Amino acid sequence: MPVRVVGFDGDDTLWHSERRFHVTQGEFRELLKRHVPEADADRRLAEMELKNLGIYGYGVKSFTLSMLETAIELTEAKIPASDLEVILGWGKRMLMEPTELLDGVEATLKLLGKRYDLLLITKGDLFDQESKLARSGLAGLFLGVEIVSEKDVESYRRILERRGIKPEEFLMVGNSLRSDIVPVLELGARAVHVPYQVTWHHEYVPDESLPRDGWYRIDNITELSRLLDTL
Amino acid sequence: MPVRVVGFDGDDTLWHSERRFHVTQGEFRELLKRHVPEADADRRLAEMELKNLGIYGYGVKSFTLSMLETAIELTEAKIPASDLEVILGWGKRMLMEPTELLDGVEATLKLLGKRYDLLLITKGDLFDQESKLARSGLAGLFLGVEIVSEKDVESYRRILERRGIKPEEFLMVGNSLRSDIVPVLELGARAVHVPYQVTWHHEYVPDESLPRDGWYRIDNITELSRLLDTL
Repeated sequence: MPVRVVGFDGDDTLWHSERRFHVTQGEFRELLKRHVPEADADRRLAEMELKNLGIYGYGVKSFTLSMLETAIELTEAKIPASDLEVILGWGKRMLMEPTELLDGVEATLKLLGKRYDLLLITKGDLFDQESKLARSGLAGLFLGVEIVSEKDVESYRRILERRGIKPEEFLMVGNSLRSDIVPVLELGARAVHVPYQVTWHHEYVPDESLPRDGWYRIDNITELSRLLDTL
Repeated sequence: MPVRVVGFDGDDTLWHSERRFHVTQGEFRELLKRHVPEADADRRLAEMELKNLGIYGYGVKSFTLSMLETAIELTEAKIPASDLEVILGWGKRMLMEPTELLDGVEATLKLLGKRYDLLLITKGDLFDQESKLARSGLAGLFLGVEIVSEKDVESYRRILERRGIKPEEFLMVGNSLRSDIVPVLELGARAVHVPYQVTWHHEYVPDESLPRDGWYRIDNITELSRLLDTL
């Protein structure tokens, strides 16, 4: 069955996201080095994020709260409040930064929008995602927007059912094998992996664990239109 | 046209929410009194929340971040990190508390579910709202769940359109005139106001500014079934 609906992930597929976290985490590392030079701030922050994931969920606010908790814990509460205020400021800066599109995104969406129904299916903090979409200038190109707290088989199934889309006519495009490819294939739909320069540890899945068929990999989103022509 | 679909707000309509904020805010006031006895912590926190609303949106994580910022600002960064850690802990406690249903909610939903399609339409943090719904035991009673970042005319319009619901066959039930009644009436649908014991300042709308028709007020959700019989 030909593809009728194309779903796109947002963070690190349409716009840069991980980079924001990366930059802030570098600043966090430097700040903590002044208080506890021997500490492995990156590892401790990653552990804290994972520990808090079930309470906070994904997103910048969760990340900020985990940075604060890690900083207090690592310094045994000796860090001055003025430094914690700096961390609060990083969170706000991340939330207010302009949405920076990846190269070729706008042209590709405009091109594909003529031939397919386009959906944005993104994970994370509802408010932040909506705000990023609004600032991206892309909102008008999507027939629908779905922001979910977790991208698993069930959440994709619900979206397709509610919108009357058969798995065989759906194709998902995203940078995360774990969130954009694996659950979509399990549902019987197709998927295109567009790797991003940095992958968050939590999202990593080895290629070997994926089905052999039903998914494709391209280096750049601009190759998507040509790939779709071959399907 | 008879009512076919009944929408329910979540926070303070089906389950207690404001109370959690109220209790925590009392603790916040006491904690700050030890550092700055003369400060009006409640007012300053309310101002901070409003100032941050456009960056953080609604919800417990936003509230926690605003408490931290208020505490640092009011004490001129003299508050020890151990006290800020306590505030972080309050946020987590709020997020993990069991979902406490209001009296009569479960019986009312079960009764109405036989005659109407029920939707949950709630505002706030996606992850927290989903988590509360899961813990409420009510998820199975709803035909659909919509979590939005702001309840305005546009968000209601989108929900009804996507689900093929005519405004004339929709009735919304909630505790907030601003979020559950006013925008729904503007859309040409009907609404039932069930006041909660405490109303957040941000949600307050004077009765006089509402249309005279199309909405009803009941003291308790258990009266809803009888009211619907009369429509």
